Amino acid sequence: MGLRTAEEYRASLRDGRTLWYRGKRVDDILAEPDLRVAVDNAAVDFDMTHDPEHRELAVVTDPVTGAEYHALYALPATPDDLVRRSRLIEIGSLLCGTILSVKDVGSDALLGLLGTLEGDGLQRARAFYTRVAAEDLVLAVAQTDVKGDRAKAPHEQPDPDLYLHIVNETADGIVVRGAKAHTTFGPNCDELIVLPTRAMKDDDAPWAVSFAVPANARGLSFYISSYSSGEHHPWDRPISSRHKMLETLTVFDDVFIPWERVFLAREPRLAGPLAMAFVDFHRFTAVSYKLPLLDAMVGAAGEIARMNGVIKAGHIRDKLTQLVIYAETVRSLTESAARRGQVDARGICRPDALTVNLAKYTFATGYHEALRIVQECAGGLLVTGPGGDDWDAPEVRPVLEKYFRASAPAAERLAMMKMIADLTVGDFGGYQSVLAVHAEGSIEAEKMQILREYDAARATARARRLARLDEHVE
Amino acid sequence: MGLRTAEEYRASLRDGRTLWYRGKRVDDILAEPDLRVAVDNAAVDFDMTHDPEHRELAVVTDPVTGAEYHALYALPATPDDLVRRSRLIEIGSLLCGTILSVKDVGSDALLGLLGTLEGDGLQRARAFYTRVAAEDLVLAVAQTDVKGDRAKAPHEQPDPDLYLHIVNETADGIVVRGAKAHTTFGPNCDELIVLPTRAMKDDDAPWAVSFAVPANARGLSFYISSYSSGEHHPWDRPISSRHKMLETLTVFDDVFIPWERVFLAREPRLAGPLAMAFVDFHRFTAVSYKLPLLDAMVGAAGEIARMNGVIKAGHIRDKLTQLVIYAETVRSLTESAARRGQVDARGICRPDALTVNLAKYTFATGYHEALRIVQECAGGLLVTGPGGDDWDAPEVRPVLEKYFRASAPAAERLAMMKMIADLTVGDFGGYQSVLAVHAEGSIEAEKMQILREYDAARATARARRLARLDEHVE
Amino acid sequence: MGLRTAEEYRASLRDGRTLWYRGKRVDDILAEPDLRVAVDNAAVDFDMTHDPEHRELAVVTDPVTGAEYHALYALPATPDDLVRRSRLIEIGSLLCGTILSVKDVGSDALLGLLGTLEGDGLQRARAFYTRVAAEDLVLAVAQTDVKGDRAKAPHEQPDPDLYLHIVNETADGIVVRGAKAHTTFGPNCDELIVLPTRAMKDDDAPWAVSFAVPANARGLSFYISSYSSGEHHPWDRPISSRHKMLETLTVFDDVFIPWERVFLAREPRLAGPLAMAFVDFHRFTAVSYKLPLLDAMVGAAGEIARMNGVIKAGHIRDKLTQLVIYAETVRSLTESAARRGQVDARGICRPDALTVNLAKYTFATGYHEALRIVQECAGGLLVTGPGGDDWDAPEVRPVLEKYFRASAPAAERLAMMKMIADLTVGDFGGYQSVLAVHAEGSIEAEKMQILREYDAARATARARRLARLDEHVE
Amino acid sequence: MGLRTAEEYRASLRDGRTLWYRGKRVDDILAEPDLRVAVDNAAVDFDMTHDPEHRELAVVTDPVTGAEYHALYALPATPDDLVRRSRLIEIGSLLCGTILSVKDVGSDALLGLLGTLEGDGLQRARAFYTRVAAEDLVLAVAQTDVKGDRAKAPHEQPDPDLYLHIVNETADGIVVRGAKAHTTFGPNCDELIVLPTRAMKDDDAPWAVSFAVPANARGLSFYISSYSSGEHHPWDRPISSRHKMLETLTVFDDVFIPWERVFLAREPRLAGPLAMAFVDFHRFTAVSYKLPLLDAMVGAAGEIARMNGVIKAGHIRDKLTQLVIYAETVRSLTESAARRGQVDARGICRPDALTVNLAKYTFATGYHEALRIVQECAGGLLVTGPGGDDWDAPEVRPVLEKYFRASAPAAERLAMMKMIADLTVGDFGGYQSVLAVHAEGSIEAEKMQILREYDAARATARARRLARLDEHVE
Repeated sequence: MGLRTAEEYRASLRDGRTLWYRGKRVDDILAEPDLRVAVDNAAVDFDMTHDPEHRELAVVTDPVTGAEYHALYALPATPDDLVRRSRLIEIGSLLCGTILSVKDVGSDALLGLLGTLEGDGLQRARAFYTRVAAEDLVLAVAQTDVKGDRAKAPHEQPDPDLYLHIVNETADGIVVRGAKAHTTFGPNCDELIVLPTRAMKDDDAPWAVSFAVPANARGLSFYISSYSSGEHHPWDRPISSRHKMLETLTVFDDVFIPWERVFLAREPRLAGPLAMAFVDFHRFTAVSYKLPLLDAMVGAAGEIARMNGVIKAGHIRDKLTQLVIYAETVRSLTESAARRGQVDARGICRPDALTVNLAKYTFATGYHEALRIVQECAGGLLVTGPGGDDWDAPEVRPVLEKYFRASAPAAERLAMMKMIADLTVGDFGGYQSVLAVHAEGSIEAEKMQILREYDAARATARARRLARLDEHVE
Repeated sequence: MGLRTAEEYRASLRDGRTLWYRGKRVDDILAEPDLRVAVDNAAVDFDMTHDPEHRELAVVTDPVTGAEYHALYALPATPDDLVRRSRLIEIGSLLCGTILSVKDVGSDALLGLLGTLEGDGLQRARAFYTRVAAEDLVLAVAQTDVKGDRAKAPHEQPDPDLYLHIVNETADGIVVRGAKAHTTFGPNCDELIVLPTRAMKDDDAPWAVSFAVPANARGLSFYISSYSSGEHHPWDRPISSRHKMLETLTVFDDVFIPWERVFLAREPRLAGPLAMAFVDFHRFTAVSYKLPLLDAMVGAAGEIARMNGVIKAGHIRDKLTQLVIYAETVRSLTESAARRGQVDARGICRPDALTVNLAKYTFATGYHEALRIVQECAGGLLVTGPGGDDWDAPEVRPVLEKYFRASAPAAERLAMMKMIADLTVGDFGGYQSVLAVHAEGSIEAEKMQILREYDAARATARARRLARLDEHVE
Repeated sequence: MGLRTAEEYRASLRDGRTLWYRGKRVDDILAEPDLRVAVDNAAVDFDMTHDPEHRELAVVTDPVTGAEYHALYALPATPDDLVRRSRLIEIGSLLCGTILSVKDVGSDALLGLLGTLEGDGLQRARAFYTRVAAEDLVLAVAQTDVKGDRAKAPHEQPDPDLYLHIVNETADGIVVRGAKAHTTFGPNCDELIVLPTRAMKDDDAPWAVSFAVPANARGLSFYISSYSSGEHHPWDRPISSRHKMLETLTVFDDVFIPWERVFLAREPRLAGPLAMAFVDFHRFTAVSYKLPLLDAMVGAAGEIARMNGVIKAGHIRDKLTQLVIYAETVRSLTESAARRGQVDARGICRPDALTVNLAKYTFATGYHEALRIVQECAGGLLVTGPGGDDWDAPEVRPVLEKYFRASAPAAERLAMMKMIADLTVGDFGGYQSVLAVHAEGSIEAEKMQILREYDAARATARARRLARLDEHVE
Repeated sequence: MGLRTAEEYRASLRDGRTLWYRGKRVDDILAEPDLRVAVDNAAVDFDMTHDPEHRELAVVTDPVTGAEYHALYALPATPDDLVRRSRLIEIGSLLCGTILSVKDVGSDALLGLLGTLEGDGLQRARAFYTRVAAEDLVLAVAQTDVKGDRAKAPHEQPDPDLYLHIVNETADGIVVRGAKAHTTFGPNCDELIVLPTRAMKDDDAPWAVSFAVPANARGLSFYISSYSSGEHHPWDRPISSRHKMLETLTVFDDVFIPWERVFLAREPRLAGPLAMAFVDFHRFTAVSYKLPLLDAMVGAAGEIARMNGVIKAGHIRDKLTQLVIYAETVRSLTESAARRGQVDARGICRPDALTVNLAKYTFATGYHEALRIVQECAGGLLVTGPGGDDWDAPEVRPVLEKYFRASAPAAERLAMMKMIADLTVGDFGGYQSVLAVHAEGSIEAEKMQILREYDAARATARARRLARLDEHVE
């Protein structure tokens, strides 16, 4: 109980869970180098709570019991709490190489559950939340069903398993079958939270299901994506050789869930609200954890331009300004989403949905153009330059040092070049670019939410007043 | 003393000031219909302070003396004060048909003077400020010199008058000569504040000058722009037939300024800071007063699409979403500029310069595309439709009513169409579009300021950390 | 017979046609100054055919009879003919101040009719075409119905007149009722061609109608838009004080059309093809006549930047480059649309529909941003500067000459500034901006046409080949 | 002599050339799997000339001798020749997986040399060209110097070797030292052509040098970039597991060049023109070989949207339209650059420089946004999906087949998904994105060239005419 150490976390993963990687069963996640990177990256979060530099931000103390728990598991009650939450997510991302820290997503799901459920489901979610905080657990979230024919509702699919659903129900619990795609952190979580992926109607009742399940449950299998597999020289990939998230196809092959872990069963009317409540928190997390990525892009473009010797060129200054505008607009909107947060009837302060989606939309639609600008500042060496094996070779390094010096020594310039390559080209760069447009909701989803959340009344009234169709002022 | 009425304001303008319009001297500004519109629009500001609906926002009461003065003349001491200031400017703009209300600019200049000056100049500015607030005066601001050859400093110009400068100095005061362009509100102000337009060096000392002067001073002439002259049917131009700002070339032909009105004389080192201090407040005003314009664009696009019967089309919803994103990003950044305001050593809370410029840049660079979207939603009738004389003609109106009905009666649809035409095409629309890119600073000026205000240290540190060139975290 | 003179054209307009302007009947179009400008502008086209400088381009001689007729009325038989046609339209636009010359639209309609009709309709259209060419007539085209509820087909409208339709049919001809919006050149044409506005189905048969009618036909009324009415000083509006097009609501109040003038009656299956055949030629005309406008924008931005003294600034050079890219991309696509022209079964060479729509789309979506760039280069004087009455006044002009000199004398700089103002702000600038997005088809219409015309087979095959789903190469 | 076979080409590479890869000397390029892929890809070009399907396009027969040589080595004499050249480059790219075929670049260099050189240099270049065509050689081109401090000219660099230069000159030839970056095809060429990288002045004479050198010359070393090293499952990377280009740092350590291979020595005035003549041809090659890439992006987006079951969604159709506009604008501009080609005094038809640069600029600036659209259409599976090892595993494949079926079987959908991943994320996708903005010239270089090539006279004249400053028409 209490805040676990990184070692305790690592040890807990050897529990017989069913992992598949590159066509084979993996018995020990720690023994497979590709996967070990992701575990070690997740462990950063545990180190944070024991590191004097970050404890104040990362740890909350219960004023009554004195018990310590992770600050992500504190329920935000005010806009200031949201600002702090955003800051914690941002620093976690910085320590994790610009990706999520391992408790971000799960805490968003908990907030979604606690803010939406009713009756027994709510009681169970509260009990579960208390245990998660007390035992300092890592949660993964499985939401996106594989979906099959996207023009059809769950109950209309030729194969009912294309959306996760209840296949049996007893006095003890339910049995579920189906699969979820894009489950981040699945193989290295303690518990998996399952959420519905969309609004549902009465016919979809068996598909309206939400619960928690331990990662080693019988019938639960994680098929880990082999995207970006293989070991790489840390000089070539200074970020991704140390930081990684695992993504899975998560298959439920008649998995039994006892009632105390079932949050939602056959209540389609709550499916949509639960999905959206999670999403609003999760998009707020998204824009918070992207801030170090955006800062790194601005900083990298400036540093490499300086090292290349072109920092004073007018067009370079213009490009840097574009990057600053992009990064700082996202930052300001994220901060604004927190400051405009509203406290709901249960005392949870939610970030402003319109502003969160503006921030996410601005981030997502500007990302590829920002990539282009960073690449323009860096130059073709991103993909034509030497590698770590070259740098390590005594016969080659002097050649590189002689010819790749510019306004900085080759060692510095190539290190920055490799970081930019890791961030913008190669597997990790591509991963980031796809995350930008798909993770935590697509651009189209954000646009729909923006139009839905917008209060058109003020705009309509002002237009009609200017047209002299109405005379009143607000 | 105290808050004046609109009638008192109007009467005070008959003071012998030298006005030129369309090639002729104008003796009475109220007798010339084109100019009268601008005076009546300015009078709205006086009505606000006497209107129960707006008094609370527009009027401040001195806690000691009980004296009332205009809230724009209250010095902002906290971010909340800036939020309130922004709201007041926004509502003023709404009442003035989306343009500045008449005290906005002058109050920005006062804040710039009070925050930058030193010594005698500061004392005089404070005294002047006290009088302005107490007497409820209208100030215009003359800043932009006509400049001549823009590659040359003031003292290098072949004609020294191309920047306003001191031509004589006595025990009683100074004598100035030159001209300022784009002076808004000059013909209908009480006092004119003159500010330097740029940073200066020692050689430019005679051009480093700032002062206040009454509008009817000897040697001071206002050459009023005839842009958008002529009377128009209010049905055709529902906004601009009622709302207008006058712009002038303001010529100083050896105007004497007594010392008590001189704020800066021959102190080039303060010229740049004074110019910038005004500009930061003024850009905050800019983005605040544009909010009703942006709301009106969103609202107008939605209303006309509804009336045209195309509100459900996918591409129309997409266009509306783009407008919402544009308008709400500017609004959020404006609010953020206030919330991030910092209190200077003199107790004045300044809006955050980086965020103000982000807001202004976002507004200015997005405006023309927003125009296009609004025009796309409205249709070609904007420029091919009937006019007010047609609508008034008993033989014509029935034809229009029959054929211009769509998903709304012709009367409503044409009224909205005319408002959009006024806002986006025609003289007033063109005026707004040029204001968007030039007023309160050009887009390039905003970009320079953004790059200057950006704290690059965090970004650089984060990039270097990811490149493993540095190890620390902030 | 043969090529008429401008005077002959002007005289022919006094034929008792029914014109309404600003709420009143107009008996003589030449006597109303606002309308006279449009007639004089239309007369430019007649002057061209008699001007040695332009005869070679503008006149075609029948190789058999030696008769001369307007080159716009020559049927294009090869891609080279389309190139020449484009050039003629471009030069006509240049002479007409960047707008259509008066025979452009009608010749597009003729080409649409001759390329689509069948049977009797085709015979009548050929006879009509021969007469038009021989008598050198001016045609206007009325296509866009007023439409009412846009979600409904013609026969579903509550008022059947909201689309023009046949109300009676006799041995001699048909009787039509309804109204067309946005008819350009209606009041000053010889004959009006009516085209259907959309694809139709069987229920819409009475609305599937196309014919020609003289401008003075009984029951035909032109309600001329008063947009941009009023006289203006030529110094203020150097283009629009000389060049103008009239736009009307054109009302058919039971107008009788004899059979020899009826091209289409109750043949809904041809309505869509006829509308589209006209549109493809008309969009080709559109991008051709916009070229002088785009050149003028590039040239004006460069000239005013030079006169302002900022031509060497990096950001100005960047802006000019953006304008060049925009203008030259439209020019290249327009030329390409001609070069890729295909000859149909009737021997008429049609511009390539995909490329025409690319050109038009590029023009339309880039126009507002180009406006912004030109305005950025010009400066705020566009809307705050002096007017023609000031320039004419002996007391005022010296002041303007002194203070508005920069890197060019005030006379030149202000002349260029006024031209830019006419082109980008004010009534004419607004008219151009709305034409850009609505005339000759909306942006959405162009996008639909691009997707429809695109041959997706090559792209699909290449993608599948790279995915190793198919192996063949084209 | 004559057209070689792929096997002859492969065998010729075992000639003792000095290759370094991943820190080690490579004795046999064919024995190193990573490098072998690039050789096999290059061999495609040899297969083309022997393949009946492509011979007509790829082979030219000398009308006198009957000798056959590669069509890329035919000198274009007319615009039609340029159209054919573009088509050949396009088909070569299609066969090579959207990258250059191996003779493209060298033929551009030959055209640059033959069009620019004078005197002895020209004679030697002609002799060299004849031999290359006759012996069907593969050329690589080394142009970009490593540059050191970019604010300094070659002779100002602290280390003179940072630009390749002549260190000795004898009766037999010259000795050169230095290094070139980004040399594509170096390790698998027969001969390397060296070109200067920029305009030079008299002080830079020793750096103004151009020549040809065999790949196995003494003192010449290729340091091959290890970017994208490692073998990959062909199911995961259907393109890049088969298609690759090698990029090198090419070091000249006192390499002797006999006079008959020296094209330029100490003639700085020709350095700039030679560099640019190559570049204009090379950018024309660039936009030609990108066409299959752009087609593949359009086709892939459409196919994956169809397979995902969302092809009818309005926003998807809009995205596809954006891709079509992008791809077809580049295609039209490329074709136009050929059609507008001008024949120089030596009879070589050069593509129009303005239009080539417009095409390249349009391609380069639109590429990243196009990537985003393709990724939006594909979905997150791009980076979270299964890999080839999973697909091959009998226990795993059925799971994938069940759950990744949508509107197409999983096998097809995942194949298309993997192709898109290869093209847009991962090493190859990143490589393509950097090529887009840097290869064949940066975006800034294209902008400079556009402004330089633009004939501003027409635009200026038209603007001045409209401003009534000049009266003539062109």
